[in-house]
Amino acid sequence: MSIEKINARNQFKGKISNIILGDVVSEVDVETPAGIVTSVITTRSVKDLELKIGTEVVALVKATEVSIAKLL
Amino acid sequence: MSIEKINARNQFKGKISNIILGDVVSEVDVETPAGIVTSVITTRSVKDLELKIGTEVVALVKATEVSIAKLL
Amino acid sequence: MSIEKINARNQFKGKISNIILGDVVSEVDVETPAGIVTSVITTRSVKDLELKIGTEVVALVKATEVSIAKLL
Amino acid sequence: MSIEKINARNQFKGKISNIILGDVVSEVDVETPAGIVTSVITTRSVKDLELKIGTEVVALVKATEVSIAKLL
Amino acid sequence: MSIEKINARNQFKGKISNIILGDVVSEVDVETPAGIVTSVITTRSVKDLELKIGTEVVALVKATEVSIAKLL
Amino acid sequence: MSIEKINARNQFKGKISNIILGDVVSEVDVETPAGIVTSVITTRSVKDLELKIGTEVVALVKATEVSIAKLL
Repeated sequence: MSIEKINARNQFKGKISNIILGDVVSEVDVETPAGIVTSVITTRSVKDLELKIGTEVVALVKATEVSIAKLL
Repeated sequence: MSIEKINARNQFKGKISNIILGDVVSEVDVETPAGIVTSVITTRSVKDLELKIGTEVVALVKATEVSIAKLL
Repeated sequence: MSIEKINARNQFKGKISNIILGDVVSEVDVETPAGIVTSVITTRSVKDLELKIGTEVVALVKATEVSIAKLL
Repeated sequence: MSIEKINARNQFKGKISNIILGDVVSEVDVETPAGIVTSVITTRSVKDLELKIGTEVVALVKATEVSIAKLL
Repeated sequence: MSIEKINARNQFKGKISNIILGDVVSEVDVETPAGIVTSVITTRSVKDLELKIGTEVVALVKATEVSIAKLL
Repeated sequence: MSIEKINARNQFKGKISNIILGDVVSEVDVETPAGIVTSVITTRSVKDLELKIGTEVVALVKATEVSIAKLL
């Protein structure tokens, strides 16, 4: 199943720079032009997607998940 | 109450470039070096934080909210 | 940008059966073999993805967003 | 405290088919008519709810957590 | 379908003190011993659950949705 | 970077009463006037924020992440 387009408004294209494999969830760092974007996904997904350092991916975030803070 | 640091691993600093005010929630676009980051927050928060076009903010995303997709 | 695979473990393929367009966010109902799956996404995404009744889509949910309740 | 009804629009009734116990969070797979629904919850909740393979549960998802992707 | 117990670790019992009905989503304020807890749910859920000012409810939050900030 | 104000409508001030350190994510319990609020954040954030038992923190929750259940 290939996806043409997804509603997630925030999409950061990059390469995986680090993976910390955990028993149930893993941390995946993606190096993007915006800096490192960190994701926590299931370890099963890391394996199913065959994610490795260097894999080209998109980090996706729904707009409802983004908080806004005002700086001092 | 001022916050020193927050656990959200993904923080995108920028200026608000657009606000669509809705009855209950509003869309806030933040122009960051990473491109536009879009957030949906309550309209009450937009007012409480006195957000306007040009306001300097940080868009914050918890790592557990970031999905990873592999490109074709 | 086409996506090959996404980490969201829960994917429900179906056809859009209803859309309630709101000022900022919209409700999109997807008829799947599992019953109706309801999603709230930005109205801008509804337009960008050109979603209409009948459009074939996949409803995606990260495993960390799923709660478990025990029945009486 | 018994709950009569919850706002989560997406409710998938089923039986637990697999549990991967982790140090802090665990993966719980629920076999539903819609296929396997996967959830990541705290290991403490797995114990508090006494979840086991075969336990009848409902997997719940808020509509705001559902993303929509268009197929190629 | 009655629910015996849910995995959401954070449960705040209280009475609805305010509802702002929107076209697609609504804001529901719950007065709890912990102060006001604010929720955004679909307007359809407000109607299905027949929520009104004074209705006794529980506000539920998954542990994975809670952020931690350190004070100055 | 110090934050003046954040949009998260639900803020529970308290002291950390317990931390369960995991390989990738950790559970952080915060004792608040509202009772214990439990959070799951990355173990890297626990270290970066130097969280310990007794640290004063704020637990933050976006309104879109709060579910509402009606009692029996």
